Amino acid sequence: MEETARVIEAIWELLDAGRDERLADLLAEAHPADVARAIRELPVKDQVRVFRLLTPQHAGAVLGELDDPTLRELVRSLDEAEVSRALDRMPSDEVVNVVEELPKEQAEEILDLMEEQKAEEVQELLEYPEGTAGRLMSPDFVAVLETVTVARAIEHIRKAKTGERAFYVYVVDDHDHLVGFVPLHRLITADPATTISAIRTEDVESVTVDTDQEEVARLVQRYNLIQVPVVDANRRLLGVIGVEDVLDVIREEATEDIQRLGGVGGDENVLDPPQSVFTKRLVWRLINLGTAVLAASVIGLFEQSIQSLATLAVFMPIVASMGGIGTTQTATIVVRGIALGDMTGSVLRRVLWKELWLGLTTGAANGLVIAAIAYVWKGQILLALILAMALVFNMLVAAVVGTLIPVALKAFRIDPAIASSVIITTFTDVCGFFSFLGLATVLIRFLL
Amino acid sequence: MEETARVIEAIWELLDAGRDERLADLLAEAHPADVARAIRELPVKDQVRVFRLLTPQHAGAVLGELDDPTLRELVRSLDEAEVSRALDRMPSDEVVNVVEELPKEQAEEILDLMEEQKAEEVQELLEYPEGTAGRLMSPDFVAVLETVTVARAIEHIRKAKTGERAFYVYVVDDHDHLVGFVPLHRLITADPATTISAIRTEDVESVTVDTDQEEVARLVQRYNLIQVPVVDANRRLLGVIGVEDVLDVIREEATEDIQRLGGVGGDENVLDPPQSVFTKRLVWRLINLGTAVLAASVIGLFEQSIQSLATLAVFMPIVASMGGIGTTQTATIVVRGIALGDMTGSVLRRVLWKELWLGLTTGAANGLVIAAIAYVWKGQILLALILAMALVFNMLVAAVVGTLIPVALKAFRIDPAIASSVIITTFTDVCGFFSFLGLATVLIRFLL
Repeated sequence: MEETARVIEAIWELLDAGRDERLADLLAEAHPADVARAIRELPVKDQVRVFRLLTPQHAGAVLGELDDPTLRELVRSLDEAEVSRALDRMPSDEVVNVVEELPKEQAEEILDLMEEQKAEEVQELLEYPEGTAGRLMSPDFVAVLETVTVARAIEHIRKAKTGERAFYVYVVDDHDHLVGFVPLHRLITADPATTISAIRTEDVESVTVDTDQEEVARLVQRYNLIQVPVVDANRRLLGVIGVEDVLDVIREEATEDIQRLGGVGGDENVLDPPQSVFTKRLVWRLINLGTAVLAASVIGLFEQSIQSLATLAVFMPIVASMGGIGTTQTATIVVRGIALGDMTGSVLRRVLWKELWLGLTTGAANGLVIAAIAYVWKGQILLALILAMALVFNMLVAAVVGTLIPVALKAFRIDPAIASSVIITTFTDVCGFFSFLGLATVLIRFLL
Repeated sequence: MEETARVIEAIWELLDAGRDERLADLLAEAHPADVARAIRELPVKDQVRVFRLLTPQHAGAVLGELDDPTLRELVRSLDEAEVSRALDRMPSDEVVNVVEELPKEQAEEILDLMEEQKAEEVQELLEYPEGTAGRLMSPDFVAVLETVTVARAIEHIRKAKTGERAFYVYVVDDHDHLVGFVPLHRLITADPATTISAIRTEDVESVTVDTDQEEVARLVQRYNLIQVPVVDANRRLLGVIGVEDVLDVIREEATEDIQRLGGVGGDENVLDPPQSVFTKRLVWRLINLGTAVLAASVIGLFEQSIQSLATLAVFMPIVASMGGIGTTQTATIVVRGIALGDMTGSVLRRVLWKELWLGLTTGAANGLVIAAIAYVWKGQILLALILAMALVFNMLVAAVVGTLIPVALKAFRIDPAIASSVIITTFTDVCGFFSFLGLATVLIRFLL
């Protein structure tokens, strides 16, 4: 992205030099995505200055490219009138993207100031719940009746003014029901006198307005779609979702998965103000504290043994730590498998078997190594053996827990990604301390 | 994906009933992606049976949709001749996707049996290194000279037979240099007598054959592209990359990030045979064993204190565990921020400040809770205070380590995602044990 970096640097320079006219020229030529990147790195005062140098057309596009915290901060410092002027120039689905991120009152004020027709379109889209196909769709598309000729259809496209992202013509019957589509390429190469019904593809993948956006993303990925038509319960065509909107969904989903596994909020951004993420961070840290106390209480059961043989305390965290890496590795693969749709019920046995095999083999290898280290360090062969046995046992526990807990969460319709290491390593912590200290306590008279 | 599930079930039923003719009909109507899903759940014997019921055209498309392990296993059980027949019907970039996953010898044999022209095209693409735009691109596109009229360009599209995924016409000069593009929609709505140079967009985002595929994906996402033209060092147009290929890259990258953070190979799949992932899993588990031994050796330094006061061993893992969640949360956000391009050098100070603030506040809250628990449990106010202090200190260490290590790895051009919890929690384990046991040892005479 050298292009982006170059634009950002040029904007900074011209801002510093106060050369607003040159800056306006530069901004007019830059891609809105690059301008948005530049804006986020500026203090709010300069953000406003840059924004006011943009043409209204361009300003709307830049708003659409800003990340949510920057968008909210910038709009707070602008007049509602200038925001509404910029939004008037944008397609209504993109206006929705901006407006839905703003505080409710401010959003309403801006919509009131916008052109009536555009504002109404936006209001209608906003009525669909967040995360559904209805909220994501654009009402701009070209639809023709199945009975018209190719020549008429082309005539219709000329008049429709949908913008150049119309790659398909959708085919509807007398009642606006979706009955097929024709790619523009086919339309161009067809005989102008043919009727549309003769060249349309009937078998069209569509979604309804209440389809979950993740489901839309899966459909686009599985069938390599560029655009998905959105219909109502009666199969009436209402809008289209382009692959570019789905890209954002895919990225967001992946981010959510990663972040939940890491025990943070799925939507936390690296630049979010600390106060706004405090609660979520704290909750996970408190949960972790709870599970750590649970593990500590297991150790508490064996305080007597540790009093007699402090060396136990030295090796104790090794067993727990190995259980931790085991569950984390297994759960990561299983959670990701569930997200990608690879982890279906029919393969559960195969996955469990794989993880147990890995737990046993890598456990044995690690057990040998740690036994050797423990023997060299402390010179106690029995202690070394107990350590190795506890470690192998804990790796097997890790395999089972790391596989079954995400699957069980999924079965109960809970996001498997909240099976973050915080939760699942509790099992291996407890089992690890219990097996190691338990074995050692049973055999303590041979150890002293 | 009810559609997919329905197809899979129908295939199973017809297979069981041995109704091969009905099955062939069903397969002919099903989407290749659904057939591929069904195949992966079958034993190899049935995979071959289903494959042989497909038309050659369809068979090629199904091969292109299979995941890599299933593809390799199936092709091993088929004749090279039937595979080559199926691949002959596919676009050359999709043939590349299949062939590159096969063992070298088998791939060569299959290419030898394919039609000469197709095989040559494939060979040429295979010469570009994996992960570059050259390897990803398709040589099927429509290009017209800037001097022709719209009518001539449309004529050219009719003859070019590029398939219906041609959404743009690329514009070249006499020497095949890329000098612009025209969306089909604009071509249709333009006056047929206009010259292409009058309606083309000159400012075209392109990549060179050696551009990294991640860079292509970032470009597509940032500028919402449907197709990216690929040029050589002299800006001669050689191919195009469609957004559908980029979707796979984005998904793979996200998966890689998640999995590396979890301490497993970036390309491991939940169904991979255990032997094939054994080494990578073992390596991380051994590294973890090494870091655990390091942490244990810190405890070893304080064995004397633990001998005198075994209660220390009970609380010890709590400090380490809280450091672990702290680093994991921080590193997850920072690694993801780097991957999304949000974590630039200029915001490092802001992020570090945020994490320190969170470490201090949540640390204080957690410290209070654990001090209360420890006091109630063991009745020692000083021990409770030491525990709380060590915990707060370790949360601050976690904030610094979780932020700086991924950033430093990135600066050294190492994938920040390998800053998996395995590596970074070593710091907090060591600091946690050291601060808690160290403080307790200094103050031990007040504790006994």
